[in-house]
Amino acid sequence: MVKTAAFATPPPVAEPSTLSLRRVAIDTWRENVAYLHRDCPVYRAEGFQALSKVEVRANGRRVLATLNVVDDESLVGCRELGLCEDAFAQLGVDNGHPAAISQAEPPGSIPALHRKIAGERLGHDDFRAIVRDIADHRYSKIELTAFVVASHKGDLDREEVYFLTDAMVESGRRLDWHERLVVDKHCIGGIPGNRTSMLVLPIVAAHGMLFPKTSSRAITSPAGTADTMEVLAEVELPFERLAEIVREHRGCLAWGGTADLSPADDVLISVERPLSIDSPGQMVASILSKKVAAGSTHLLLDIPVGPTAKVRSMPEAQRLRKLFEYVAGRLGLVIDVVITDGRQPIGSGIGPVLEARDALRVLECDPRAPNDLRQKALRLAGRLLEFDPDVRGGDGFAIARDILDSGRALAKMDAIVRAQGARPFDHNAPQLGGLSFTVSAAAAGVVTAIDNQQIARIARLAGAPKVQGAGVDLARKLGETVEAGEPLYRVHAEYGADLEFARQASARGSGYTIGGADELPHVFVEF
Amino acid sequence: MVKTAAFATPPPVAEPSTLSLRRVAIDTWRENVAYLHRDCPVYRAEGFQALSKVEVRANGRRVLATLNVVDDESLVGCRELGLCEDAFAQLGVDNGHPAAISQAEPPGSIPALHRKIAGERLGHDDFRAIVRDIADHRYSKIELTAFVVASHKGDLDREEVYFLTDAMVESGRRLDWHERLVVDKHCIGGIPGNRTSMLVLPIVAAHGMLFPKTSSRAITSPAGTADTMEVLAEVELPFERLAEIVREHRGCLAWGGTADLSPADDVLISVERPLSIDSPGQMVASILSKKVAAGSTHLLLDIPVGPTAKVRSMPEAQRLRKLFEYVAGRLGLVIDVVITDGRQPIGSGIGPVLEARDALRVLECDPRAPNDLRQKALRLAGRLLEFDPDVRGGDGFAIARDILDSGRALAKMDAIVRAQGARPFDHNAPQLGGLSFTVSAAAAGVVTAIDNQQIARIARLAGAPKVQGAGVDLARKLGETVEAGEPLYRVHAEYGADLEFARQASARGSGYTIGGADELPHVFVEF
Repeated sequence: MVKTAAFATPPPVAEPSTLSLRRVAIDTWRENVAYLHRDCPVYRAEGFQALSKVEVRANGRRVLATLNVVDDESLVGCRELGLCEDAFAQLGVDNGHPAAISQAEPPGSIPALHRKIAGERLGHDDFRAIVRDIADHRYSKIELTAFVVASHKGDLDREEVYFLTDAMVESGRRLDWHERLVVDKHCIGGIPGNRTSMLVLPIVAAHGMLFPKTSSRAITSPAGTADTMEVLAEVELPFERLAEIVREHRGCLAWGGTADLSPADDVLISVERPLSIDSPGQMVASILSKKVAAGSTHLLLDIPVGPTAKVRSMPEAQRLRKLFEYVAGRLGLVIDVVITDGRQPIGSGIGPVLEARDALRVLECDPRAPNDLRQKALRLAGRLLEFDPDVRGGDGFAIARDILDSGRALAKMDAIVRAQGARPFDHNAPQLGGLSFTVSAAAAGVVTAIDNQQIARIARLAGAPKVQGAGVDLARKLGETVEAGEPLYRVHAEYGADLEFARQASARGSGYTIGGADELPHVFVEF
Repeated sequence: MVKTAAFATPPPVAEPSTLSLRRVAIDTWRENVAYLHRDCPVYRAEGFQALSKVEVRANGRRVLATLNVVDDESLVGCRELGLCEDAFAQLGVDNGHPAAISQAEPPGSIPALHRKIAGERLGHDDFRAIVRDIADHRYSKIELTAFVVASHKGDLDREEVYFLTDAMVESGRRLDWHERLVVDKHCIGGIPGNRTSMLVLPIVAAHGMLFPKTSSRAITSPAGTADTMEVLAEVELPFERLAEIVREHRGCLAWGGTADLSPADDVLISVERPLSIDSPGQMVASILSKKVAAGSTHLLLDIPVGPTAKVRSMPEAQRLRKLFEYVAGRLGLVIDVVITDGRQPIGSGIGPVLEARDALRVLECDPRAPNDLRQKALRLAGRLLEFDPDVRGGDGFAIARDILDSGRALAKMDAIVRAQGARPFDHNAPQLGGLSFTVSAAAAGVVTAIDNQQIARIARLAGAPKVQGAGVDLARKLGETVEAGEPLYRVHAEYGADLEFARQASARGSGYTIGGADELPHVFVEF
């Protein structure tokens, strides 16, 4: 017989005393922070410090936040509770609204997290609980990192990856386009200049397939598809307007940030990106959960392979392909995986304006268009077209080329740009940053390697993607010969400090290796 | 022949434009934060956001900080650079001093961190590089967490634990007491009320052994030895003064926070504690690096075992013992490990004042003294005394008891308290918090379990250790009978909000289980 002890003192009913809310105009980059004066008479700030989160309640809502202690009444008074911009907005009230705080209870899924850290296999419900807590912002950055690292390489089996992906789909909204065939394409990333979506989408939509493409903005890369598309058109549209455009034009090229699709993924990214780790399981869960939530039925996935790409070897690419295929299969998503040449950037320009220029040159069949971008876009579009049961296997590439060369892809792109809201852009006179410098070859030879990561870093330091006209314009690609003093690339920036950062980075490492023709790696033939 | 490309543009020499430093009175709890206005004309804050750290340079020094973006000129102006209190203090300048910022280069040890995340074994130099970067505050919280989780259970072999420990010793100052025998004791923690150091130290120092004890303050527990000793005496003393006291009295009981011993450990703790993980490797490295850096030659280590202790089973305790013995051996530190009963709190009081009361009662041989605290202290002191080559094996306990019962331990404690700076304290009338409530048994029975973690949590919520008089005073221990309505414990607090938090926690779980006498776990005999 076990009896649990109970209490002589009745449980409390009164709400603890409240403070007055104050917006503190600090943007903490996706982390909720609450500011409490050290001498607050209601709550002693000191007592909260060691705990990971506090819960702030106001207006019937609650947010979880990290606590900072303030020693200046002009920032936050003794009877005030400050909140950073994001957290304040989540409560939806005005300055001065009453609020209460308490120690946040540890998230309910922490025992499951500890089991994962200890190396145990988790079940479907464990992942549901963890993902729900993550989507509700109940995890601190420290707990998020622990989950990401504990789930890293080899520590999630393929069924666990399916559980995680499915839980991430469940954590947010799920779209239904009410069509049999809803296509999407995705590249796992890491290759600068790789703006194929802006070509593949108009080709495939011109063929009549439904292709409601929402893209991310760049987080650590010099441009995402949304950043580049934004040079040409509005990309932040209400969902209802996007749906209209998709119904009328069979496609769109918009930013997906407002759709609440797989919200746990956005939270996880806030620690994965600074850490620069992309475990296979997390990558598969992130990509597939977004696609399934967005209502896609068929997905073309691009895995670039190269010494400075995310995936460095063919066996690694094949393992990743199998994992994508397994999880997509469990989710009922048709997937086609292509493994592509990731040894160097695609196209010439890196940065929103430069990439928009390249994409429009391909659409206009301009002779200055980078051929590698054109060829890759046609190949991907061809594979997507073959999802159409009426297209014979092997015919996709030729159909795509006809659509592009006939101008139908350009017309489709024009229609989508106008529908989303066109912005003025002349690709023959692109608005580049007013400051620039050139990096040239020290000696004659052949370009034997281009470091994707270093080129991306230089473009980013130069200001891309926030400064649309900033970036790197490549003058030479792999296998091309160069004389001493001839330019390898030109860096564009708008601000002096950015130019300086980019210059310092390119002085530490230009990203180019010049050698003999015999040192050129063999053409990448395995895909 | 490989030639690297070089640059037509000469490398820059000019320092980028500077901003004016401003102290922002925010305590960010051990994380450096820099505040930059969004419209800063010199550096565009947006460009920095996604990166984990910025480097701030002023006065020939530099600090690494996380960047927050400010939208209010009254907080930080467009030509100002704000720094949180900690970071500002590290630069050692006044408001208005010129400063420059740049993107922080990723720490040099990040590739080694990535190898650890991927499950590889690291070498001595890898650990040196990682620990140096950690001690220099070059790791973000995210990177720190990644290291801690990747090094968790099973992922560090015993030689790696030695490498890590040795690197942590090297990262800071190392004391040398110029004596052959310098003893210390340490408990791995997790047992509330376990203040044996305040008894063991005066006994052992009265015997004449050198025992320069520096302790931590509580981080997540209701009291550390430094917090409890602070009820009786000053504990924050300059190192030179401590050394004088140790030379004169053969011992001290002070706070070790200012000594710069194993500084990387303090940084790692800032993520380990909120995460509540204590991997064996990290625990061994943390404890042994501090002891070796403090100049100890002989260490007695206490590992409590119980269902709500850190270590839950005897096999786990034995594995941990072997790891401590291996690493201590590699470091040339003599170690004696005792495994003790960790099924319940030690003594009656939990919280600084209550624990000081218990300790003084034992020293004064007061009949109200908790016998479990007395017995455990005598046992540990006896083992320490046996480090003395002149003490015959097995005689330690009796010698310790003689020193305690003769009043020599009390006299030694009095001398040390006076030397450190006595504070007024009367253990017959301890200053407890003015608010309190009692938790009583719902039904008659025998106490069959006391949850260490829940009792600690209630004491902490009541205000301990910041409020010295707050805490929990236990009226019943394991195996004692209780009638319905009789008190199990009393909670003391100073502030209404604290009392309320503690009351809510004890309402969710009192921490006590009352059952039949047959359900009492067998006495813990294995140690």
